[in-house]
Amino acid sequence: MEKALEDTVSLLERTPATLDALLRDLPEDWTQRNEGEGTWTAAGVVAHLIHCERTDWIPRARRVLEFGETRAFDPFDRQGNERESHGKSLGQLLDEFGRLRSENLDQLRAWNLRAQDLDRRGLHPSLGTVTLSQLLATWAAHDLTHLHLISRVLAHQCREAVGPWIQYLGVMKCDGHSGA
Amino acid sequence: MEKALEDTVSLLERTPATLDALLRDLPEDWTQRNEGEGTWTAAGVVAHLIHCERTDWIPRARRVLEFGETRAFDPFDRQGNERESHGKSLGQLLDEFGRLRSENLDQLRAWNLRAQDLDRRGLHPSLGTVTLSQLLATWAAHDLTHLHLISRVLAHQCREAVGPWIQYLGVMKCDGHSGA
Repeated sequence: MEKALEDTVSLLERTPATLDALLRDLPEDWTQRNEGEGTWTAAGVVAHLIHCERTDWIPRARRVLEFGETRAFDPFDRQGNERESHGKSLGQLLDEFGRLRSENLDQLRAWNLRAQDLDRRGLHPSLGTVTLSQLLATWAAHDLTHLHLISRVLAHQCREAVGPWIQYLGVMKCDGHSGA
Repeated sequence: MEKALEDTVSLLERTPATLDALLRDLPEDWTQRNEGEGTWTAAGVVAHLIHCERTDWIPRARRVLEFGETRAFDPFDRQGNERESHGKSLGQLLDEFGRLRSENLDQLRAWNLRAQDLDRRGLHPSLGTVTLSQLLATWAAHDLTHLHLISRVLAHQCREAVGPWIQYLGVMKCDGHSGA
């Protein structure tokens, strides 16, 4: 496998266990609270990651491999997160995310992508031309943006409790960067 | 145990496994790179957390319990991180962090703190009067500020690779909040 792709996969395969270690059986005071109306809970982020596993990364990579730039990606359905989380415990969501990620990485490995494949181009409905390698790097960076978000949402729950130390804690100053 | 303290401990006891799942055996292209001169690597953050386990949280809690406001905390030694990491692999640092955290949580539980203990006051060399409960909440929030930092440092390593998607990734817009 190409070195850059190996590095991407090594991050992608660690995210389910990372979120499991952090969130499974953590009290709901941490996991079911958000930063205010219209913002995410940690559990909601896991539902979002599940939705992306189903509809974003591998389906878009397949679109690139099958259609190149002749058929744009389907737009991302921003309501999908709620459907994913409906009626499910956080433990069930973590299980589902782990299973889907594992299946998707199996698919990625089965494609046995080479350097010339990673340069193939696809069409994003808003961003225009993108490459397969950019899509796969974004898959890993998207995990990190949501780990960054989860750490901020959890930290928000102890804003008051830390008292004057709040001024030393960078995460408390993070303004959300438009939501993620 | 008090509910707030239980919640704090539940987060604190998960951090070593979270960092282990994310970082152990992750390629050095991720873990040994920083965001530019004078900034942290993911491995450096683990060394910092070790140093805090040795010199900050439990020693300061003990100072509160023994001396109240009559004897200020020792100032934090900002050079300590480098001493902790010298000559050690990331795997060794993760092992050491896990062991120290476990010992420190054993000590915390052994104190069997009650509500009135959590209200006890200590003296921070810069912040002035603080309570034991603020110190313990900050211990957990400090884990989260560094998980937030690690996710940003890792994401920095794929800034170029994600191409035009960079504009959708909040973590890429995070300015560092003065270093953490």
